[in-house]
Amino acid sequence: SILMLILPLNEDLPIRLTDMFGEIQSPNFPDSYPSDSEVTWNISVPDGFKIKLYFMHFDLESSYLCEYDYVKVSSEDQELATFCGRETTDTEQAPGQQVILSPGPYMGLTFRSDFSNEERFTGFDAHYTAVDVDECLEKSDEELACDHYCHNYIGGYYCSCRFGYILHSDNRTSQTACTASSWRRVSSSP
Amino acid sequence: SILMLILPLNEDLPIRLTDMFGEIQSPNFPDSYPSDSEVTWNISVPDGFKIKLYFMHFDLESSYLCEYDYVKVSSEDQELATFCGRETTDTEQAPGQQVILSPGPYMGLTFRSDFSNEERFTGFDAHYTAVDVDECLEKSDEELACDHYCHNYIGGYYCSCRFGYILHSDNRTSQTACTASSWRRVSSSP
Repeated sequence: SILMLILPLNEDLPIRLTDMFGEIQSPNFPDSYPSDSEVTWNISVPDGFKIKLYFMHFDLESSYLCEYDYVKVSSEDQELATFCGRETTDTEQAPGQQVILSPGPYMGLTFRSDFSNEERFTGFDAHYTAVDVDECLEKSDEELACDHYCHNYIGGYYCSCRFGYILHSDNRTSQTACTASSWRRVSSSP
Repeated sequence: SILMLILPLNEDLPIRLTDMFGEIQSPNFPDSYPSDSEVTWNISVPDGFKIKLYFMHFDLESSYLCEYDYVKVSSEDQELATFCGRETTDTEQAPGQQVILSPGPYMGLTFRSDFSNEERFTGFDAHYTAVDVDECLEKSDEELACDHYCHNYIGGYYCSCRFGYILHSDNRTSQTACTASSWRRVSSSP
């Protein structure tokens, strides 16, 4: 129908969420969600954090590969999960107790319902919270975060050196490094 | 001597630290600390956090029960630890890899050196960081934080209810509780 073609133009802009925690609910929750609905939430938190998302209630129409009604969770450049139905079976994929963690400080969530639902579905109730990234643990695989010691704190990290060494910044690589402080009388340096 | 009696009046006021992380060093670090010195640092972070303290370097004069030179760590109403020496033996107690966690959002640290040190000691280098309190885990022993569901976030927590229930505040006990929403058509309430 013509109405169907026009509707996408009337879609609401994504809802921006920048708080460190929050609740996301389907339209009209806890009443049943409307047909032909699409809502996107974009969660962003400061650098040094990830986003943890989980569902306390989930009740969507079931469909093969969730092609009708769904909740899609994505990061900046990849889809993290797609959910629909009421429980996890061959055809539907409900979140259950699953916790979804974003790889970076951004997470997108899109809810969509198709033009007709035979039954009433009550939708979803999701909660998100910022999670501190432990850069000292996370960076150890690829490249060491610090030359000697790494100190994580909520929202960031910093480096320090063993006794007798001095921290300095390498302007070329923007890395920090530790060098021996030979000009200083060192009494208990290893 | 008269000088000894006057000195306490010249003591510096405690150093207030309110950042979410930081470094605390003995006077003149990494050079040896002066005799007859006393410095106190008071760390305070927002409610909903604790303070984690650990030492990267520790080298104080050793004495029986740490009565001469020492570092004392305390919370608002109790002593958490007393350290001195270079390593842990019968008489001295060095922090080593120990991590000290405050019970609340406050920690005090006092460094003291006595009037004479036979050797040179290089003192200490400590780091602290605010740690989020998980109220949902911590309160479960004594009193449940929430009636149904508890959601922790960095710096606090909030409550929510099972589907079909409504959260309300009890003004009498300042607790939150969940009550069945009987006035609402509930399609999938347990």
